[in-house]
Amino acid sequence: MDLEDARVTVVGLGLIGGSLALGLQPRCRGLTGVDPDPKTLELARQAGIQVRELEPALLGADMLILATPVRESLRLLQTFRSHPPAVALLMDVGSTKRQIVAAMEALPAHVAAVGGHPLCGKERSGFQQAEAGLFLGSQFVLTPCSHTTPEGLRLAEQLVSALGASILRMAADRHDRLLAAASHLPYLLAAALMGYVEPLGEQDPALWEVVASGFLSTSRLAASDLTMMVDILATNQDMTLSALSGAQAALEQLRKLLADGSTGQLREHLQPLQQRRLSFQDRRGFMHGA
Amino acid sequence: MDLEDARVTVVGLGLIGGSLALGLQPRCRGLTGVDPDPKTLELARQAGIQVRELEPALLGADMLILATPVRESLRLLQTFRSHPPAVALLMDVGSTKRQIVAAMEALPAHVAAVGGHPLCGKERSGFQQAEAGLFLGSQFVLTPCSHTTPEGLRLAEQLVSALGASILRMAADRHDRLLAAASHLPYLLAAALMGYVEPLGEQDPALWEVVASGFLSTSRLAASDLTMMVDILATNQDMTLSALSGAQAALEQLRKLLADGSTGQLREHLQPLQQRRLSFQDRRGFMHGA
Repeated sequence: MDLEDARVTVVGLGLIGGSLALGLQPRCRGLTGVDPDPKTLELARQAGIQVRELEPALLGADMLILATPVRESLRLLQTFRSHPPAVALLMDVGSTKRQIVAAMEALPAHVAAVGGHPLCGKERSGFQQAEAGLFLGSQFVLTPCSHTTPEGLRLAEQLVSALGASILRMAADRHDRLLAAASHLPYLLAAALMGYVEPLGEQDPALWEVVASGFLSTSRLAASDLTMMVDILATNQDMTLSALSGAQAALEQLRKLLADGSTGQLREHLQPLQQRRLSFQDRRGFMHGA
Repeated sequence: MDLEDARVTVVGLGLIGGSLALGLQPRCRGLTGVDPDPKTLELARQAGIQVRELEPALLGADMLILATPVRESLRLLQTFRSHPPAVALLMDVGSTKRQIVAAMEALPAHVAAVGGHPLCGKERSGFQQAEAGLFLGSQFVLTPCSHTTPEGLRLAEQLVSALGASILRMAADRHDRLLAAASHLPYLLAAALMGYVEPLGEQDPALWEVVASGFLSTSRLAASDLTMMVDILATNQDMTLSALSGAQAALEQLRKLLADGSTGQLREHLQPLQQRRLSFQDRRGFMHGA
């Protein structure tokens, strides 16, 4: 089976699931969306997506994509143990992968499954933010496991290509370790910044007048959807804590350098970090605040 | 005297000084730029800016704007003690204000001076990034001092208005305290993030493949010009250290919440911070990564 012959069901029509639905609909035999929220269903219908209840949507699917928050995906995978879907590929798009892949491996042996994680996002969440082109030019991690069949993997790769993204294949463990540093830690730093300034702004509201682009950039991730983020932190707790401790050590090192007052040493420490960060300046979508 | 009658000299033609020169040139009687870098002077000349050596540029000026890194501005102000410029207004545009204002107050009594700080910036520095519209819609802090005359303040206000920015008047001490939290701390958080991930990326270069928009946003300030940043940190050391300690405490609080494993408490802690950050989403230039 190829993607163009497949009936695809997407469970969860938020930013990522909605964008998957919009992007895949013209590239597959039929697409069905599932979501518990009536407003989301109405928006999806208006955008031309066929929506159904979970059970009938599962029955008719060749490919099943879970685009729910990680712990909801885990709950669904748990129910699939006794009622496995008869699909050519079961996939998820959650931001942490070890627990998902473990839950896939706990399914009956005939269920072909692969973990997925598209590395893209937006300021705001929800179907109203969804767009078919969201994945264009971005990386899409696939984390194969013992339940990944050659046909399933091929379908997953066709899906990534259809969305205009690049495939990055890696083990779930490595994914979670890298993403703890590249994504979950930045979220915590943004939240800590907001946690520090919030009471200051109550003392002197002029603070909110002087926040400019730098502050907005550093704090941006603190606006992330909380259900999604808390699920991510809870399902990657050990590696996120390890990244957080590492960042705390890096911050303490900066504090000492600043307190010592040697601007020469401070500059020497900052220089390679500046150079590394400058090397990303021209990368995908960055200049447009993506 | 009004801005339109004034001959303006801008010392330092980087991003901010260059943008001031381009923005003010059509609004004043004559504009002269000063910079030590021959390449910058060539670019400025090509953009129609008249460039001169510092001494003749000072002699002909009615308004003198220091757009050099803070410690270079302090050095210039030191030389003005024995050779005060005969201007209607001396102003600076540095990112910290207490030491600048103290140096202005140490000048002979007849020198009219005011501190300034435009709250805007860009990814990259240098005259090649300068543009007349850089200040449009942004806030421009003015920090008056004992050397600020009514005429000088009026000229400074005309300058801010001519650039399309809004005036935010406050004491230097309050400015430095607020900016430590709103700007200098975010820089240190971005640098700490880069400091933590740099060795991880050397161990596993796939890290650089998985950095997406969230990481790029949080780490953006680490690419800032180092001469500018080190001067800022050195001249606002006490308040930046205090902000840094506050952020370290906020980060430790997050670490404990995450380690405790109560997702309910974690979410309760994050929720007001998310709401505050969401309230900024639609502010000036943010969606374009400014």
